[in-house]
Amino acid sequence: MSPTAPHPAPAPHGTHGSPEGDRLVGRSVRRREDPRLLTGRGRFVDDIALPGMLHAQFVRSTVAHARIAELDLDGIREVPGVVAVFDAADLGLADIAARLDRPLHEFVPTDMPILARDRVRYVGEPLAIVVARDAYAAEDGIEAAKVRYDILPPVVSDTAALAPGAPLVHDAAARNTLVDVAMFATEGIDDVFAAAPCVVEVHTTTGRQNALPLETRGAVAAWDAKEDQLVLHTCTQTPHQVRTVAAACLGLDERAVRVVVPDMGGGFGQKCVVGREEIAAAAAALRLGRPVKWIEDRKDALTASFLAREQRYDVRAAFAADGTILALDADVVCDMGAYSCYPFTAGIEPLMASAEMPSVYKVPAYRVRGRAVTTNKAPTAPYRGVSRPQYVMVVERLMERAARELGIDAVEIRRRNVITEFPYTGVNNITYDPGSYLESLDLCAKVLHDEGWYAAKEQAAAEGRHLGIGYSCFSERTGYGSTAFAARKMQVVPGFDISEVRMDTTGALTVTTGTQNHGQSHETTMAQIVADELHVDLGKVRIHQGDTERITYGWGTFASRSIVVGGSAVQRAAAKLGAKLVALGAHLMDAKPEDAELGAGCVRLRAEPERTVSYERIAEAAYLRSNLLPDGIEPGLSATASFDVFDDGTFSNATHGVVVELHEGTGRVEILRYVCVEDCGVAVNPQVVEGQCRGGIAQGIAGALFEQITYDAQGEPSATSFMDYKVPTAWEIPDVAIHHLETPCLFTTTGAKGAGEGGTIGAPAAVLNAVNDALAPTGVELDSTPITPETVQRALESRP
Amino acid sequence: MSPTAPHPAPAPHGTHGSPEGDRLVGRSVRRREDPRLLTGRGRFVDDIALPGMLHAQFVRSTVAHARIAELDLDGIREVPGVVAVFDAADLGLADIAARLDRPLHEFVPTDMPILARDRVRYVGEPLAIVVARDAYAAEDGIEAAKVRYDILPPVVSDTAALAPGAPLVHDAAARNTLVDVAMFATEGIDDVFAAAPCVVEVHTTTGRQNALPLETRGAVAAWDAKEDQLVLHTCTQTPHQVRTVAAACLGLDERAVRVVVPDMGGGFGQKCVVGREEIAAAAAALRLGRPVKWIEDRKDALTASFLAREQRYDVRAAFAADGTILALDADVVCDMGAYSCYPFTAGIEPLMASAEMPSVYKVPAYRVRGRAVTTNKAPTAPYRGVSRPQYVMVVERLMERAARELGIDAVEIRRRNVITEFPYTGVNNITYDPGSYLESLDLCAKVLHDEGWYAAKEQAAAEGRHLGIGYSCFSERTGYGSTAFAARKMQVVPGFDISEVRMDTTGALTVTTGTQNHGQSHETTMAQIVADELHVDLGKVRIHQGDTERITYGWGTFASRSIVVGGSAVQRAAAKLGAKLVALGAHLMDAKPEDAELGAGCVRLRAEPERTVSYERIAEAAYLRSNLLPDGIEPGLSATASFDVFDDGTFSNATHGVVVELHEGTGRVEILRYVCVEDCGVAVNPQVVEGQCRGGIAQGIAGALFEQITYDAQGEPSATSFMDYKVPTAWEIPDVAIHHLETPCLFTTTGAKGAGEGGTIGAPAAVLNAVNDALAPTGVELDSTPITPETVQRALESRP
Repeated sequence: MSPTAPHPAPAPHGTHGSPEGDRLVGRSVRRREDPRLLTGRGRFVDDIALPGMLHAQFVRSTVAHARIAELDLDGIREVPGVVAVFDAADLGLADIAARLDRPLHEFVPTDMPILARDRVRYVGEPLAIVVARDAYAAEDGIEAAKVRYDILPPVVSDTAALAPGAPLVHDAAARNTLVDVAMFATEGIDDVFAAAPCVVEVHTTTGRQNALPLETRGAVAAWDAKEDQLVLHTCTQTPHQVRTVAAACLGLDERAVRVVVPDMGGGFGQKCVVGREEIAAAAAALRLGRPVKWIEDRKDALTASFLAREQRYDVRAAFAADGTILALDADVVCDMGAYSCYPFTAGIEPLMASAEMPSVYKVPAYRVRGRAVTTNKAPTAPYRGVSRPQYVMVVERLMERAARELGIDAVEIRRRNVITEFPYTGVNNITYDPGSYLESLDLCAKVLHDEGWYAAKEQAAAEGRHLGIGYSCFSERTGYGSTAFAARKMQVVPGFDISEVRMDTTGALTVTTGTQNHGQSHETTMAQIVADELHVDLGKVRIHQGDTERITYGWGTFASRSIVVGGSAVQRAAAKLGAKLVALGAHLMDAKPEDAELGAGCVRLRAEPERTVSYERIAEAAYLRSNLLPDGIEPGLSATASFDVFDDGTFSNATHGVVVELHEGTGRVEILRYVCVEDCGVAVNPQVVEGQCRGGIAQGIAGALFEQITYDAQGEPSATSFMDYKVPTAWEIPDVAIHHLETPCLFTTTGAKGAGEGGTIGAPAAVLNAVNDALAPTGVELDSTPITPETVQRALESRP
Repeated sequence: MSPTAPHPAPAPHGTHGSPEGDRLVGRSVRRREDPRLLTGRGRFVDDIALPGMLHAQFVRSTVAHARIAELDLDGIREVPGVVAVFDAADLGLADIAARLDRPLHEFVPTDMPILARDRVRYVGEPLAIVVARDAYAAEDGIEAAKVRYDILPPVVSDTAALAPGAPLVHDAAARNTLVDVAMFATEGIDDVFAAAPCVVEVHTTTGRQNALPLETRGAVAAWDAKEDQLVLHTCTQTPHQVRTVAAACLGLDERAVRVVVPDMGGGFGQKCVVGREEIAAAAAALRLGRPVKWIEDRKDALTASFLAREQRYDVRAAFAADGTILALDADVVCDMGAYSCYPFTAGIEPLMASAEMPSVYKVPAYRVRGRAVTTNKAPTAPYRGVSRPQYVMVVERLMERAARELGIDAVEIRRRNVITEFPYTGVNNITYDPGSYLESLDLCAKVLHDEGWYAAKEQAAAEGRHLGIGYSCFSERTGYGSTAFAARKMQVVPGFDISEVRMDTTGALTVTTGTQNHGQSHETTMAQIVADELHVDLGKVRIHQGDTERITYGWGTFASRSIVVGGSAVQRAAAKLGAKLVALGAHLMDAKPEDAELGAGCVRLRAEPERTVSYERIAEAAYLRSNLLPDGIEPGLSATASFDVFDDGTFSNATHGVVVELHEGTGRVEILRYVCVEDCGVAVNPQVVEGQCRGGIAQGIAGALFEQITYDAQGEPSATSFMDYKVPTAWEIPDVAIHHLETPCLFTTTGAKGAGEGGTIGAPAAVLNAVNDALAPTGVELDSTPITPETVQRALESRP
C-alpha cells in the first residue's frame, strides 16, 4: 500500500461520510471544546464548589530519606480555621499496590502508602492532611506541624542506587533495583560486534523533568448519601483506575466510588497515575462527612507530584561499511524515584525501551538489559512518549555518528536501514504494520533542501556562524492492546475500550467513551467518527466522558490510544446502532432490513432511495410507540461495543528535521527551522493532529534544551518554582512546518493511528543531532539532555 | 392454581435465592432507604444548593377565567432582590402538547402553555416567573405585579361545562367535552334491563382532591456548559418524560436536557405529569445563565398544582332474583380542569373507568359512555388508583344495594358474581389473569365474623348505637403494557422498561432502572430481586434511579407498574449477567458453560460444586486481565434487558372489610376495624406491601370522609391551606389488619403483581358501604364522597 495513498474508498455503507458525500473524518472541523473553553465557561476541578466544602493541604517531608521519629500535629489543630488533621494512623488506609505480571526476580513490587507511615523517601512526601475552612488556613496549619526526623542516607542517583552497599530505599525490597529484565539477546551478537567494520557508542543521560500540565493536580471529594457513594471529582486521565485504587485503599466496594472528571488543563501522563493526595482527600471527606477540596500548588506540583524522564543509556551499535546496521547492544537504567506508581509501575520505562529500541530500523541482532532503580526522589509517571524520546535520541545519535564515521550522508544511512516492507517482524519480536518510514524521511530532507537550509548552512559556515541540521526518524507504537505490552501473554495494561452510542427521541446522539479527553479534542474527533457512521450533522452528536457511572470500565487516555482504541469502539457502537436503525426503519416502511440502508439522517430503501423514514420517526417508535416495534427488537436506541488491540498495535511514524544556530558568547541554541513529516494514518482531524504535533514538539524541545529538576547531595530538589524550572515560552519554540502522509491503519475501524506523543518523541533527537551537526567542526559531541547554553558555549570555545 | 399456594418451586437456577437457600424475595428485609432518610441525610430537591443559584416564584392568576388585558411587570423589577421577571412572550416557549392516539371526535387535544399567554383558565395559573436572590424577594416581587383582567364567565362544574351554550374554556376546542367515548355497548342490553327482576341505580359524585405529597413540587435548573446540557433536578415520578417535554418546550435536542431526581417525599400521581413551573424555571436558568430553584409553597400546591378525583357516575345494574348480575349501564363524566396534562391527557380517567368498570364480576352485558370535560379549575393528574376508587365505589354500592333489595347477604351476592375461573375474558374485552377474588372475600368476611363484629353490630343496635359493616371487593390492573391501555392497538403510555445490571471489579452490583422510587422502597425490593438472581448478599447490590443519562429511557413509577415491569426488567438483566458470569467462570476453570452454574457469589461446576471461581476473580478477568477472556466474550460485566407487558396486564386483587360507628350529635364516622386481605402475587417484601396498603387506605379514607377542594361560583378554590383542606391525621386513620394471599403472576419474572394503589382503591367503597350499613335503619343512603359529619348527622336525625 502506498503510504501517501488516500484513504481507501468507503465500504458500501458503514464507513462513509455525513451528510452524505460530505465526510467529516479527515476534515479540520473546528474544535467543539473551544467555545466553552475560550469564553471561560470551562469547569475545572477548582471551579467546583460544594456546600460546606473544606480545603486540604499536606504536611510534607522536608528531607529526602529519614525515619519519622516524631510527628506532632497538635499545634496544627490550634491554628484558626483548621478543622482537622489526619496522619497515616488516623486514616488507616491501604497502600496503593503496584503489581506487574512478571517473575519476582525481574520485578520487585513496592507499595506506596497514602500518607507516609514511619519513613519518608523523598522531599515532598505527604505525612499528614490538614483540612481547614480555606486553603490559607490549611497552609498556616502545615507550618505548625512538628516533625522530628532520624535522617537516613539518601540515594539521589541511579549510580548511587546501584552501588554496592547502597542504602536501601525500601528495606523490604532488599535492593534498589525494582526491575531487571534482559529481554533480548541475539545469539552470537558479540561476534557481530567483534567483526563489524564500524562500532559506535552513545552514552546518554536525560534530565529529570516535570510533565507540567498547566492545571496542577486536584480533587474534590464528597459523600453522596443518596447513592451511598463517594463522589471524587478529580483531574485524571484514567478515571476508572482512580476508582479501582480509591475503592481498594478506602476499603469500599468499587461501585461505592464514583469518579467524575471535569475539564482538564493537560495531563501528559502525570495524571494517568493515581495520586496519593486524591485518596487522602477522599478519606478526609468520609471522616468529616463534608466535601473536601485539594488543589495542588505549583511548588508541590514541581517537586512532589510525579516526575519523569531521568534515564541513562549506554548503547553501542555495529555497522557494515555501507552503513547497514548489524547489531544493537543496550543497557538502560531508569531512575524511577521513590515508588512504583499505579497502574504502570517502575516497569514501564525500562520495558518499553527494551521492547522497542530497534525503532524504525532493520536491526538483525539485538541485546538489551533494562533496569529500573528506586531513589530518594519524587516518584515518576509515564510522560508523553515514555521512554521513546530517550531511546529514539540514542538510536538517532548512533545513526548520525556512524554516518560521520563511515562518510555517509546522515539521511542516506537511515534510508539504507529503515523498514520498507510491511508487515515487518523485528528482532524484538514486534510486528510493525505499514508505515511511511522511508517516504517521511525523504520528504523531510527534500523540504529542508528545497528551502535552502543546506545552502544556508554552508553560507553560515563561511561566515563563521554555527548552523546545524539534524533529523530524527522514528515510529511510535500507539494503542497498546490487551496482550501487546512488552511480552506476549503478560498483560500490563488492558487495551480494550467500551463505548455506548445512544439516540434520543429527537434523533440526537450521546456517545460515551471510556477514554478521557484532557486536551486531545475528543469532543470533536469522536463526534466526527460517529457523525460519519450514522450520517448526521456534527451538531447532533455529543461526546461524554469522565464519569465512571456512565460506562462499565474505560482505560482512559494515555499511550496515544484514544482514537485507536476508543475511536474504534465508538465507531463500532455507532455501526451497531446503525444496524438497529436500518432494521427499525425498514420495518416502518414494511421492508426487509437488507433492502434498506442509512441515508442522511434517515433510513431509505436501496431500490427507492426517495422512500425514507427519518431518525426522528424511528426514535419515536423505539421509545414512545413501542407497540410499533417488530418482534425481537427491544425498545430504545442504544448500542454498546468494545474494541481491543490483540496484535502488536499500530505504529505511527514521522521524520523531524531541525535547523539550529548556535550563538557564540551565550551558547544559545536557536531553532531556525523545524519540519515535521508525520503519518498517523487517517487523520480524523488534521488540525487537531497538528496541534498534537506542535505541543509535543514544544515539550520535546523543552526536554532537549531547557527543563531539568536536579537534586543536591541531600536529595533536595533544585526547582521549586518557575524561577528555577526553565519552561520554554512561545519565544523559544519555533513555528513548526507540518507535512502529512497517510498510511491507513489496517485494523482500526477508522484507519487512524495514534497521534498524541509523536512530537515529543521526535524532537530531542532531531534537536540534539542538529546541535551536534553545528558543533561538528569543534569535535565536541553532546549526547545528554538538556543541552544547556553553558555546555554549548564551552563546546564552541573548545574549537581548535 | 390455588391462590394461597406458596410461590412455585424455584427453577434449577435463575430464580432462587441468595445466599443459597436463603431467598430474599418474599422476606421483609429492612428498608435500605431508612438509615439515610431517618437520620436526615436524604437529599431532596430543596436541599440542592448551587453556586450563584437564584430563586423563582410565579405571578399567578387570581381569577378563574379571563382575558389578560394588561400584564405590567415593571413594578416587579423594582423590588429589591428581584433579578428578572419573564412572561410568556419573554420566554417564547412551546406549549406542552397533550396527544392521545384516538380519533378526533373522541378526543380533543388542548395544549398547555408554560405561562399563560392571553387568557387565564383557573385561579393559580402561572402568568410570569419572578427570579430573585431568594424566595422572599421573589414573593415580594409577585405582589408588585399589575394584572388587569377582562373577566370571562367561569365554568366551574361538569354540569355547567356540558350545559348548552356553556362558555368555552378553550375556544379552539369548540366544546368543553375533551373526551367522549362510548367504549362498549352490548347488543340487547336495554332488553336485559327491561326484563330484569331487579334494577338498582347509583348516582355518585366524588370530591375534588389533592394527592398531597408531603414534599411539594420543586426543581433546580442549571446549564452545564461542559456537557452542553440543561441539568434539571426535579421531583418527578417520570424523569424521562419530563426530559422529553422540557426539550420540546425549550427547543432543544432531548439529549441536551438531563433530568436528575433526588429523594422524593411522595408523588401519588401528582408528580407523574410534567409541571409548567419546572419548565419555566429551566427556561429562566437558560436565560440568566445561573441556576434557578423553584420550590412550590403549600398554597400553590393546594390550589395550583394538579388536582384529582372529581367525577360523576350515573350507573344502573340489572340483577337476577338470585343476585346474579345481568347488566351494567354507566355514564361517567370526569371534571379534568383547565388542561390535559402530559403524558396522560384528559383521557385517562374516563377511558380507564370505561374499560375496567365491570371490576371483579362476571358482567354479561355492559354499556358505558365516558366523558372528560374541561372546566375553569386547576388541571388534574392521575391520583393513586386513577378512576378505580370511584368506579369500585359505584359497583360495590350497586352490589350492596341489590343485596338489600333482593334480601341476600352482602358477601353472598358478591360470592355469586365474582370471577372464579381464570383466565377470564370479560364483556370489556379484558382478559383477567388468575386472582383470589372469592378467597379474599371469604377470608375477609371470616375475619370480621371471627372477631365478633357481626355480634357487636347487633349488640350496638340493641343499645341504639350505629355500627355498620361494609366491604369492597376489587382488582387492580397493574403494569400497563405497550398495547394494553383502554383499546388495543392504541398506545397511550408505552409499557416497557429497561434495566442495566453491572458488576464492578470487586463483585459489587449497580442496578439502573427506569422506574422512579418516590416512597415505594425500590432500593430495597429491586435489590432483593437481583441478589436472589445472582446469589449475592443484599449489601452487594445498589439500585440507581433518577438520572436520565443513566438509562436510555424509562417510564417512571405510576400505575403500580414498577415491580411488574421494572422489576422484571431488572431480573432479566441480572439473569443475562448471570449467564455471562457462568460463561466466564467456566472458561477460567477450563470447563464448558453448560457444566457450570451460579453458586453463592461464585460460579461452580455442576458436577463438582466445590470447584468454584469467585465473582471477584471473574470480574478481575473481565476488566483488568482481558487477555484471559475467551473468544467472543466482550470485556466488562454488564447486561441490559427490557421488559414489556403485551397482554392485558396483571391484576392484583383485595377485599377490604370495614366496621364503622356513626356518632350521634357530631355525625362523626369512627372506623372501629379495618381488615384488608390483599393478593399482589409474590410480595417481594411483605412489609413494603403492607406499607403500601396502609398508606393507600389512609388516602382512600381521606377521600371517603375528609378531603375536598370546592370552588365558589367564580371558580375561587375553597381550600388554600391545611386550615381548610381536611387531611386526616394518625388519629383519624385506624390500624389496618392485613392478610396476604398469593396468586403468583404467571408472566412477570418475579411472580409479583403491582401493589401501589390497591389500598386507595378499596377504601372509599368499603367505608361508604359500612356507613350505609350503619344508616340502613334510617332509610337514607349516601352515595357521594366525602361523607361529611353534617350529612351523617342529618341522616341520623332523619330516622323515623
